[in-house]
Amino acid sequence: VPDSEQALLDWLRRFLDRGRPALIGDDAAKLRLRGDFAFTVDTQEEGRHFPRGLDAARVARRLLAVNLSDLAASGARPALGFTALAAPAHFDHRAFFRALEAAARAAGLRLAGGDLTASDRIRAAFFAVGRRPRGGRWLSRASARAGDVLWVGGILGESAAGRLLLARRSRLAGPAARAAIRRHLTPRPQLALGEWLGRRRRAAAIDVSDGFALDLHRLCRRSNVGARVAADALPAARGFAALCAALRVDPLSLQLAGGEDYVLLFTLPERVAPPAPLRCAPIGEITATRQVVLIAAGTSRPLPAAGWDHFAAASAGR
Amino acid sequence: VPDSEQALLDWLRRFLDRGRPALIGDDAAKLRLRGDFAFTVDTQEEGRHFPRGLDAARVARRLLAVNLSDLAASGARPALGFTALAAPAHFDHRAFFRALEAAARAAGLRLAGGDLTASDRIRAAFFAVGRRPRGGRWLSRASARAGDVLWVGGILGESAAGRLLLARRSRLAGPAARAAIRRHLTPRPQLALGEWLGRRRRAAAIDVSDGFALDLHRLCRRSNVGARVAADALPAARGFAALCAALRVDPLSLQLAGGEDYVLLFTLPERVAPPAPLRCAPIGEITATRQVVLIAAGTSRPLPAAGWDHFAAASAGR
Repeated sequence: VPDSEQALLDWLRRFLDRGRPALIGDDAAKLRLRGDFAFTVDTQEEGRHFPRGLDAARVARRLLAVNLSDLAASGARPALGFTALAAPAHFDHRAFFRALEAAARAAGLRLAGGDLTASDRIRAAFFAVGRRPRGGRWLSRASARAGDVLWVGGILGESAAGRLLLARRSRLAGPAARAAIRRHLTPRPQLALGEWLGRRRRAAAIDVSDGFALDLHRLCRRSNVGARVAADALPAARGFAALCAALRVDPLSLQLAGGEDYVLLFTLPERVAPPAPLRCAPIGEITATRQVVLIAAGTSRPLPAAGWDHFAAASAGR
Repeated sequence: VPDSEQALLDWLRRFLDRGRPALIGDDAAKLRLRGDFAFTVDTQEEGRHFPRGLDAARVARRLLAVNLSDLAASGARPALGFTALAAPAHFDHRAFFRALEAAARAAGLRLAGGDLTASDRIRAAFFAVGRRPRGGRWLSRASARAGDVLWVGGILGESAAGRLLLARRSRLAGPAARAAIRRHLTPRPQLALGEWLGRRRRAAAIDVSDGFALDLHRLCRRSNVGARVAADALPAARGFAALCAALRVDPLSLQLAGGEDYVLLFTLPERVAPPAPLRCAPIGEITATRQVVLIAAGTSRPLPAAGWDHFAAASAGR
């Protein structure tokens, strides 16, 4: 039997506020804040950002992860979150909020409120508030300089391969396929890397959500610079080439434009490198030319700003 | 021609940040905050909260108004807002944001970020941040006490009549019908009243969104009290009885359960009354019994917690 709204709200209040000063239950959550805060909003919709039928706990974890990734790209430490959830009556709201609360707690974020409505499919917007850590600086897209090294915080293309596997209801099994689906459904926001970058003297950062090439262009535009990227240097998952061959897709295209990688793309001055455990890869350099260039198979060519355009995607029915 | 996402984002950044320190354009908006803040989220969906085909500017103003109403019920002064907008490609995003920005500015709120996605219909979540005014206290649902006077900040039932007129594509004309539609489409959040209440020593408040009776029950439950309400005292719009007769609906039912009035329902100790220009009406009293009772036509009966249950409404297809 689906919850009545009041029963669900009562449960949420008990569940989320247990043993702490109440935040849920009034028209607004009230908080005393002092410091520097980062605010971000990201939305997930069934059939668009994740496949229909995905269980409520995974929806919750994905929603949180994409928002935490924006905080990571700011150098922020997660603090507060608010959920605007629209879902069908049969949706398991309690499983959603249990998973959301557990994942939020693990990241240091407190769920402080939200809004519930009914809808024909699951649509969730999340509003995340992060705090600038003591001794940290804000990261921005605007602080790359010619001569900086361009880095990426993790693997590119694997999430898009996972999306393809799900979209095509592929029967491909094996560890590479399973890992790709896992990465697509549950991105891992790079919060530790973001905080580390925030403690550098200067670092530019963006998270790769709409596609590596598009997000690189965004970073370059905001910084008034260009970039030269080595295709060979882009980190790929183990077994990625074979998986792409089985999927009949070009691995480099997936890496460049597949999107939803939720790794950080960032720049650092020469001679500054992230510690090895953060597993980052240098992939190119920032140039003064304002052009974005890809070096592949020994030749260099302009890299177009291709990736996920939400509006183009919508008209193309993707 | 619909905007490309990038063109729209560039326009938004220029439009919203003009002449001020930039908030738009990175993965998160960064702000220094010091004080007491109220956070609230409210969602509006086409065909559910407002009629299909409503122009973009009205959608924007309604979205803002319902969120500001939550801030009003907290005694907060509007400060910041974030929009998660999902809309079809043909939606006039620029008209939406122009109207949103103008209405936000008039209320003292700055649009500081958001998220755009494509969707088959308009769905917008808004995250509003308000600040506790100097010398003000937070309002809460939990601070009503037996013996308090129960007040309402404005007219009940008119918005629901407007919703009926729109839903039935009624041809009823006349000033009462036009006023009802106007009130339904563009609620007027009672921010001045909220601030005034916040300067009292003790006041409980809630905004009437899901229906007077349901929201009164919520206030009473959180305060562990009951209430006695005089049906005759509920403020109605001019011509409301005639309008309801033409619509063949019971006026009292609309006032009690119609919802979306976005007026404040509040309690004050005896001998404290809002100034006349705020046009509030005393409608009953708070009791120790934990029962909510309506006095109508000389007899008293329990007032059920009827109103808009989002889940029940969804299954009923409303």
